[in-house]
Amino acid sequence: MKLLLVNGNTTQAVTDRVVAEATRCAAPGTAITGVTARFGVSIVSAEAEDAIAGHAVLDALAAHVAAHDAAILAISFDTALQGARQIVPIPVVGMTEASLVTACLLGRRFGLISFGQSSRRMYLDLVERAGLSQRMVGLETIELSNSAAYLREGGQDPAVIAASSRLVAAGADAVVVAGAAVAGIAHRLRAQVSVPLLDGIACAVGQAEMLVRLGLHQAVATAPLTGGSATIGIDPALSQRLSR
Amino acid sequence: MKLLLVNGNTTQAVTDRVVAEATRCAAPGTAITGVTARFGVSIVSAEAEDAIAGHAVLDALAAHVAAHDAAILAISFDTALQGARQIVPIPVVGMTEASLVTACLLGRRFGLISFGQSSRRMYLDLVERAGLSQRMVGLETIELSNSAAYLREGGQDPAVIAASSRLVAAGADAVVVAGAAVAGIAHRLRAQVSVPLLDGIACAVGQAEMLVRLGLHQAVATAPLTGGSATIGIDPALSQRLSR
Amino acid sequence: MKLLLVNGNTTQAVTDRVVAEATRCAAPGTAITGVTARFGVSIVSAEAEDAIAGHAVLDALAAHVAAHDAAILAISFDTALQGARQIVPIPVVGMTEASLVTACLLGRRFGLISFGQSSRRMYLDLVERAGLSQRMVGLETIELSNSAAYLREGGQDPAVIAASSRLVAAGADAVVVAGAAVAGIAHRLRAQVSVPLLDGIACAVGQAEMLVRLGLHQAVATAPLTGGSATIGIDPALSQRLSR
Amino acid sequence: MKLLLVNGNTTQAVTDRVVAEATRCAAPGTAITGVTARFGVSIVSAEAEDAIAGHAVLDALAAHVAAHDAAILAISFDTALQGARQIVPIPVVGMTEASLVTACLLGRRFGLISFGQSSRRMYLDLVERAGLSQRMVGLETIELSNSAAYLREGGQDPAVIAASSRLVAAGADAVVVAGAAVAGIAHRLRAQVSVPLLDGIACAVGQAEMLVRLGLHQAVATAPLTGGSATIGIDPALSQRLSR
Amino acid sequence: MKLLLVNGNTTQAVTDRVVAEATRCAAPGTAITGVTARFGVSIVSAEAEDAIAGHAVLDALAAHVAAHDAAILAISFDTALQGARQIVPIPVVGMTEASLVTACLLGRRFGLISFGQSSRRMYLDLVERAGLSQRMVGLETIELSNSAAYLREGGQDPAVIAASSRLVAAGADAVVVAGAAVAGIAHRLRAQVSVPLLDGIACAVGQAEMLVRLGLHQAVATAPLTGGSATIGIDPALSQRLSR
Amino acid sequence: MKLLLVNGNTTQAVTDRVVAEATRCAAPGTAITGVTARFGVSIVSAEAEDAIAGHAVLDALAAHVAAHDAAILAISFDTALQGARQIVPIPVVGMTEASLVTACLLGRRFGLISFGQSSRRMYLDLVERAGLSQRMVGLETIELSNSAAYLREGGQDPAVIAASSRLVAAGADAVVVAGAAVAGIAHRLRAQVSVPLLDGIACAVGQAEMLVRLGLHQAVATAPLTGGSATIGIDPALSQRLSR
Repeated sequence: MKLLLVNGNTTQAVTDRVVAEATRCAAPGTAITGVTARFGVSIVSAEAEDAIAGHAVLDALAAHVAAHDAAILAISFDTALQGARQIVPIPVVGMTEASLVTACLLGRRFGLISFGQSSRRMYLDLVERAGLSQRMVGLETIELSNSAAYLREGGQDPAVIAASSRLVAAGADAVVVAGAAVAGIAHRLRAQVSVPLLDGIACAVGQAEMLVRLGLHQAVATAPLTGGSATIGIDPALSQRLSR
Repeated sequence: MKLLLVNGNTTQAVTDRVVAEATRCAAPGTAITGVTARFGVSIVSAEAEDAIAGHAVLDALAAHVAAHDAAILAISFDTALQGARQIVPIPVVGMTEASLVTACLLGRRFGLISFGQSSRRMYLDLVERAGLSQRMVGLETIELSNSAAYLREGGQDPAVIAASSRLVAAGADAVVVAGAAVAGIAHRLRAQVSVPLLDGIACAVGQAEMLVRLGLHQAVATAPLTGGSATIGIDPALSQRLSR
Repeated sequence: MKLLLVNGNTTQAVTDRVVAEATRCAAPGTAITGVTARFGVSIVSAEAEDAIAGHAVLDALAAHVAAHDAAILAISFDTALQGARQIVPIPVVGMTEASLVTACLLGRRFGLISFGQSSRRMYLDLVERAGLSQRMVGLETIELSNSAAYLREGGQDPAVIAASSRLVAAGADAVVVAGAAVAGIAHRLRAQVSVPLLDGIACAVGQAEMLVRLGLHQAVATAPLTGGSATIGIDPALSQRLSR
Repeated sequence: MKLLLVNGNTTQAVTDRVVAEATRCAAPGTAITGVTARFGVSIVSAEAEDAIAGHAVLDALAAHVAAHDAAILAISFDTALQGARQIVPIPVVGMTEASLVTACLLGRRFGLISFGQSSRRMYLDLVERAGLSQRMVGLETIELSNSAAYLREGGQDPAVIAASSRLVAAGADAVVVAGAAVAGIAHRLRAQVSVPLLDGIACAVGQAEMLVRLGLHQAVATAPLTGGSATIGIDPALSQRLSR
Repeated sequence: MKLLLVNGNTTQAVTDRVVAEATRCAAPGTAITGVTARFGVSIVSAEAEDAIAGHAVLDALAAHVAAHDAAILAISFDTALQGARQIVPIPVVGMTEASLVTACLLGRRFGLISFGQSSRRMYLDLVERAGLSQRMVGLETIELSNSAAYLREGGQDPAVIAASSRLVAAGADAVVVAGAAVAGIAHRLRAQVSVPLLDGIACAVGQAEMLVRLGLHQAVATAPLTGGSATIGIDPALSQRLSR
Repeated sequence: MKLLLVNGNTTQAVTDRVVAEATRCAAPGTAITGVTARFGVSIVSAEAEDAIAGHAVLDALAAHVAAHDAAILAISFDTALQGARQIVPIPVVGMTEASLVTACLLGRRFGLISFGQSSRRMYLDLVERAGLSQRMVGLETIELSNSAAYLREGGQDPAVIAASSRLVAAGADAVVVAGAAVAGIAHRLRAQVSVPLLDGIACAVGQAEMLVRLGLHQAVATAPLTGGSATIGIDPALSQRLSR
């Protein structure tokens, strides 16, 4: 089985980390490919940047999807998720949605941890859009001094453990840590949190593998999306996907 | 990996069918055990019957859970799901919740199909309790002439195909068929429905396997549930689980 | 008029207390009978225990309902309420739902007080299931050192008064105290709280008397619940109720 | 016990009918007084008219409340209910809210029947305001040729029976008929509907009696409502109630 | 263009202030008229008072509406807003609703500031009724020592600035200050708050001007509201409006 | 005053039409500029296309915003609205949100009309995201034979009139027609619909003019959005806006 991880940030180091974590937790026989957005910002943390990343995610997906069995959006806002599902005939899993629904299988209510005030509301919107607000006991946001700190592996560990404790006290049966750049944090800190700790990449890999094994993938529009209208100024691979 | 399927109905034929479907779709190396409720009604279809099944599910789970890696509630009301998670240290997956969250990974909104007017509201309550009402486009209920018709494999196929079409027309990106006794129906009819068709057992097996592989299982209360108070009149295995 | 109180806990002392409070506040001419669950745990405080109590409530109700005009579930999770309504032709009132709807008649928003963290979420679920979350300003949970403390009459009084004050400050027009074992606490503390203080048994008795006087009782399925399917391993009285 | 019924419509015939129905169903020893709005419109059926009725209800309540144990707003929009509770030290029950919460004690979901398209949305708003939309399966509105038809006793019976059937088919466990002018309709038609049929006055009387017997009444502001500010142009009795 | 401001409080000083602020911010060519309620209380701050104001608002509107292009309810509870729209053929804008929808055009979530605990819940109800609760991050209520303090221009400024900061910290993209008596406060303090600060009158004037310019006004019932039924005891101008 | 209309579709004819309608309804002294997306699809009607349009909208806005007083997103999905507000210091109004909030000022509930099944769910999501689902009575979707039909002025008129009637029957106090390509349709058909008919451009122009006149504009982040991280592969004007 071949899984494609699409990083909507332009930072190769994030791609490297999500690929490493996906490789660690994938089932035997699963091969992982990573691709980084061709354009946009290095670390998306605001709606304006995410709007650009939406285009970049589809662009990268269209260019690299061939020969894969499922795709994972390795950007924690699940950027352009519905759109991605419309242009490829394989399952597309959003890393954060995957972790939230997995958390739902582990108890009645989950807690969420994110990094940086600037993106806090984007996560609230994501959970609301996913229809899961009723099952969230709270969102803990860990402030960041700068991007570098965010990217330094292990740098957020104490704050995540503390935030998890607060969420458990508030009634969380499971805790989800959002963020592509912290991929693997749940695996590393699991023993230090009293309820299951999840992050996006591991859950997304598990869910994608399951969908492929069960032979499930979303329906793809049979009529051309564009209804016969032309595209201009976008990558030919993407243009072709839109007019299938 | 060993999975225990707990059928909260007292009908052995239903257990046989869910075990067969679980065996068909399980990953290589996964062994399936099935157990049938010791007491209750043959096919649960009303709240009164489900209340009895709640006890029967815990009773059977406590008696048979040893040496398994995860348990699946093979009764489509996810009967006693939260309670089951409190008494065993392995993941417990409800077959209907598993199918609903899997459907969420395949699109924006799902449709649901159930059998028999008497249980229709129980499914609405289940979806509401799962916090997923916002993602459901509709619940189609197929009337049953009698239990025998429900249990005859293939008997519901035309009605399910028709109901799926109505749900797709209403905007469903995926369709879930609820019911332990119809396990395997999604696999059998998939080619005849234009969006992904899911049922509970296959999704529950996939989700349970994923949770085990990722090393995730719900937190179990470390203090005795009963806070030192005694139990009377219940099976010793269950009593012991409650007073761990 | 004869009212049957069904205690889903196995503690006779709780039955004695709810019967005493019901007798105190019942109208002249109302006779009170109490029955205690035959099996289960002494004080239900977790979902697993409540699942067993569901069966025990129906078992006790079926065995003792004859010759009564209404039944009251004297267990504060309103355990098996919908199921109970399906098997007897008289009104069945849940003690907590009765107190919540009564509170709704006394103002715009109510506050709720419960005992023990382990059952906190069960009350949140109950309020949500009752569709009354919008009218609740908050749930105050009073921690318990042990069951004995909970059962000692008057032991919780100071904590309840303090919690009521917090709820009033948060905007509560009325305060409901949940818990079968504290039956009578509202009557005892009423003068010390600035808004109406309610508990379950008194409200349930009042509501049950009203339903009987108005000649109202829920519809009972005319067709057998089990659709012709057999029951096994349950009390004959309950089995008979299911197959009417 | 003395109950005051405040009719916010200016039609004496409506007052007569609600008093008759209240007298029929009240407990022995309960005395009923009725009062009709001094100003406004004959039958309120639009928001503009209801805004005037709000003043008229408080005006009549203030003038006649003395020596009563509870008040019932005998106008089916529960007009000025929160305000009424602020100015008198006895329970004030809205006839429609009383019937809705009573219906909640008889099953999981209720249906509602109202008269006249012009007021349909007012009932939807009332149910939403009461926080009970989740428990309503539907609102059936019976069109009226004219007010006279509405006031002719029995004139709406066939339409109400038909609407009840539709609501039961949609899943209603109980049906509430709204409208002061049709007081008694539930009692008259009960035998012809397969689930409990309720209307406002009977439920309001029952609930008011219960609140009085239990010694419950809403908290009344101890500080003057007007914070020291003057009133002008309103009835002295009402002015005095506001500046207590 | 001529705008009519209807003050539902009986305090002329409040009318003077809202007229002054409306005049300040109106477009060239817009003329402002103010009218004060003939009866009721000097400053409405509780539901009972608001119920009276509902009648007074319609009374004043009916008496003075002639020759105006739009009306503004210059009382911050948007008292009798739906009713007002039914009786006049010109747009009627509620000052608080106008400010809330304007805030929605300035960001994802708004914060609200109100004065006096007694009316706090009325604002929560207003926002809920407007269907905008999901977009509100919080309601800050500033306590008042007395009405005089509330009416002294500038007296609330420091508290409003502090409350705004708390709302911004909670995620507000814009802050709305409710209250007719503080009309102009947003204009005065705008420079001291880091997000847009709005109050009701300025927004209502802007929205009313826009509706008039676009030729939009709500539909007015063509049939008489009263369906042929009589009115008694109300102002002839209002009576005529009801029976058009 | 200068308003910039940003068309996220790549069709110049749509830009021409929205500019014409904006010019028609703008106040004297308002100048209108239109700009068309440089890349993407001719008519956006699916999430995948909208994801690309998000980037194109920001790209066009950044390149052309200089010297304007407010911007209007002339694409009916309000594409990238929150992001647009983050990168420019002037008000940004989404055409559909503007029409929905304007409709809220004209009555209790609105109806919505859109074109083409493929985008139906996108409008449901937009209304939900705007927090206004509670105020919508329904969404009528008019099927399109092809894009050309959609673009032919007047081609949709009979269908819009019929859909409006259905929405009014369902309780709509106002009807909103969504779609940039049909700009002006509300003005053209207003006389044929019994409640106010609105479309996006006219409302957006009115709202933008109002915000400018009142001196209101959303807060713009003072810190660079990108937190010091670089952008690559995007237009320099947009890159500069992100790193202000």
